[in-house]
Amino acid sequence: MAQKPSIPKGTRDFGQLEMARRNYIFNTIRSVFGLYGFQQIETPAMENLSTLMGKYGEEGDKLLFRIQNSGEKAALTPEKGLRYDLTVPFARYVVQHREEITFPFKRFQIQPVWRADRPQKGRYREFYQCDVDVIGSDSLIGELELIQIVEEVYRRLGINVCLHINNRKILAGIAEVIGEPDKMIDITVAIDKLDKIGVEAVNDELRERGLSDEAVTKLQPILTTPPQPSPQGRENDPKAKLAELREYLASSEIGLKGVEEMEEIFSLVEATTPSLKGRAGERFSIELDLCLARGLNYYTGAIFEVKALDAQIGSITGGGRYDNLTGIFGLPNVSGVGISFGADRIYDVLSELNLFPEELQSATQVLFATFGQDELCYALRWAKELRANGIAVEVYPEPTKMKKQMGYANDKNIPFVAIVGGDEMAQNKVMLKNMTSGEQQLVSLDEIINEKIRK
Amino acid sequence: MAQKPSIPKGTRDFGQLEMARRNYIFNTIRSVFGLYGFQQIETPAMENLSTLMGKYGEEGDKLLFRIQNSGEKAALTPEKGLRYDLTVPFARYVVQHREEITFPFKRFQIQPVWRADRPQKGRYREFYQCDVDVIGSDSLIGELELIQIVEEVYRRLGINVCLHINNRKILAGIAEVIGEPDKMIDITVAIDKLDKIGVEAVNDELRERGLSDEAVTKLQPILTTPPQPSPQGRENDPKAKLAELREYLASSEIGLKGVEEMEEIFSLVEATTPSLKGRAGERFSIELDLCLARGLNYYTGAIFEVKALDAQIGSITGGGRYDNLTGIFGLPNVSGVGISFGADRIYDVLSELNLFPEELQSATQVLFATFGQDELCYALRWAKELRANGIAVEVYPEPTKMKKQMGYANDKNIPFVAIVGGDEMAQNKVMLKNMTSGEQQLVSLDEIINEKIRK
Repeated sequence: MAQKPSIPKGTRDFGQLEMARRNYIFNTIRSVFGLYGFQQIETPAMENLSTLMGKYGEEGDKLLFRIQNSGEKAALTPEKGLRYDLTVPFARYVVQHREEITFPFKRFQIQPVWRADRPQKGRYREFYQCDVDVIGSDSLIGELELIQIVEEVYRRLGINVCLHINNRKILAGIAEVIGEPDKMIDITVAIDKLDKIGVEAVNDELRERGLSDEAVTKLQPILTTPPQPSPQGRENDPKAKLAELREYLASSEIGLKGVEEMEEIFSLVEATTPSLKGRAGERFSIELDLCLARGLNYYTGAIFEVKALDAQIGSITGGGRYDNLTGIFGLPNVSGVGISFGADRIYDVLSELNLFPEELQSATQVLFATFGQDELCYALRWAKELRANGIAVEVYPEPTKMKKQMGYANDKNIPFVAIVGGDEMAQNKVMLKNMTSGEQQLVSLDEIINEKIRK
Repeated sequence: MAQKPSIPKGTRDFGQLEMARRNYIFNTIRSVFGLYGFQQIETPAMENLSTLMGKYGEEGDKLLFRIQNSGEKAALTPEKGLRYDLTVPFARYVVQHREEITFPFKRFQIQPVWRADRPQKGRYREFYQCDVDVIGSDSLIGELELIQIVEEVYRRLGINVCLHINNRKILAGIAEVIGEPDKMIDITVAIDKLDKIGVEAVNDELRERGLSDEAVTKLQPILTTPPQPSPQGRENDPKAKLAELREYLASSEIGLKGVEEMEEIFSLVEATTPSLKGRAGERFSIELDLCLARGLNYYTGAIFEVKALDAQIGSITGGGRYDNLTGIFGLPNVSGVGISFGADRIYDVLSELNLFPEELQSATQVLFATFGQDELCYALRWAKELRANGIAVEVYPEPTKMKKQMGYANDKNIPFVAIVGGDEMAQNKVMLKNMTSGEQQLVSLDEIINEKIRK
């Protein structure tokens, strides 16, 4: 017996049904991106290590997979690594190709990334990211379009969501106002946990991170305003919240700039697509969430996170505005905004809520089952005609036992079997069996094409 | 100035137009696969090195990219490698998942592979393969369907091709008949070069490879029968050729088995899709080519190669039948047949012959250009309606100089610009400019949706 085959831990094979479902998610997202004029690019799986190193913090550097070129001599000092995310390769792409690119550059990218994380439930070493960004414009139309895209994608997928939105400038303003302008990262890291650990624990962590008691006290109005568990149908009034915030942040220039940006985003939503505002707990709503921080340090303006209302799974889409992503590659001051759809989590939500369309179960609409060589040729001729009419058809490749052929159709969830025997051939027909109802009917080629098996 | 960004040699970025064109190829192929009931799977980019090593010969082992997990201790002895082709991972997949799979198993797979080859024109270190196989049946319907798929794919792409077909059993028979049964590989390697180096050089190589003069003499009828340069429209009569071969191979059991398989394949083509037989030089033809050998040793039956008639680029699709691909992973005697479409070469043929559809040039159908903030909001509302009707729309994100907005539309090949000023808003219309003809017209929302910009 040869070696027992397996794949590296943290990686996955995707079978036919999983692929059909994953393609359904990607195609839905891709179609929506297309309606907004975002166009696809791809970058290589391998990047130079110099492109990747130092971009994801010390922890991130350790999680890079390095590539040894076994044909080369210096095999011990790898110069290449596998893509860790789509953001850094995108920044590299924009700088490298700046002369060919028309700005504002609207791109999307759907490709796998690799991280040498410890594998565990829901965390893989290879997974797809699905990023959409517009770069080269600081217009808040970018934020508006991403909100519209989120709404449209989740409407098409049938997932009810709440889009949480905040602004890094507001967070910076808060840090200033409470007298700890250098501690913005500490503050955001701590308050990001509010949902999970509660106000008291957050306050403890803030003190541990070196905030004075006075600063913690000053921060309390931010921590204790809603939203937290939103009552269903509660009126969602970001304007009132922003007005309060204006007073709280009165002494901070950057904080007020953040408030202004949020006011403009909400005005744009209201002026163009008022239906999007939503009420908490509805199919789609937008919530100004001052405790949303997001980990990544390159964000400088609006930040987003999307949560599914009917599944406990954390954020399924997130992103924000960045003002200097390409600076590290020599092109400073280019502003952009983008979001990333978490395909694996979306898959889990659709599975849990049973929202995948039935027809993904089978690609093939009709299987031809035959009793002999002549019937097989007859079936092959019919199959040709059906395919020419866009119908997906299989012909069981041997005129074997009917039970075996029927079993094949059942295993593959093929909805119709066309049985061909001598009688059927003599009448220039087939016996079409509906595999769900069990009903059988003698039909002509035209009848199949025109009425019988259309979904 | 920061580091100048670049990518590893032999890898590529794909920009928007390249991606649109590549997706056109992949989508065309994928649709045809779907009509025949082939379903997609994906395997991880990384495989265990034990899965990959020894499968591609000594040369192949050297071309594997190995992966170092920098977070792990034993960083110097990699255990994982990047996928080198789709065939070995497919064999591994079939064995690993044999309990879940319904046989015959019809799968396709479109994913990148990596080889540490020396990069050169047309040879990359990362490139996509696009494989389709049916495994678990020795029915020659498999061969028939692959022939039909090749014809359909290239008809849809508009590329005229000749499908060369041969059979490894016939080659084995020839080796037997000339008295060199152990030299089949040497013979096939040499005669595979007939097109390039001519009969005399092939004979020299055969002698160098240890064939006796007598064997070389006996081989001559095979080397000197057509096909070589096929006269246009020449009657393509594989039956006559197979009849001659029957006599030549009369003493070889395996050779006669090969002839029989080829006769059955040609009969199946004739019985089911006579239009496919074709005449040499036509849009599609099939040619029995006794000098077709194909390098890979796992083939055991029919082998195929497809050449574009109007471009000098070598084989653009190839494959064949194998009887023991999964044996190395512990599942012997499973017969399958498959082919691989060479996406990069198909891309080059379509480029050279100018066959890519015009509409791939731009995804966006209308750009809204505006003069002020109110116009921008008006445009955003229109954009929402157009998108709801499936029309891809962009709104230039700032009401900047008209020249800049028009330049953006030109650079992106957007066919229509909807200009919005105060007058247009007052009439609830936009000025729609056809960017090809220069023609302008004041139109309503309904007019755009229903007639103006449909492709």
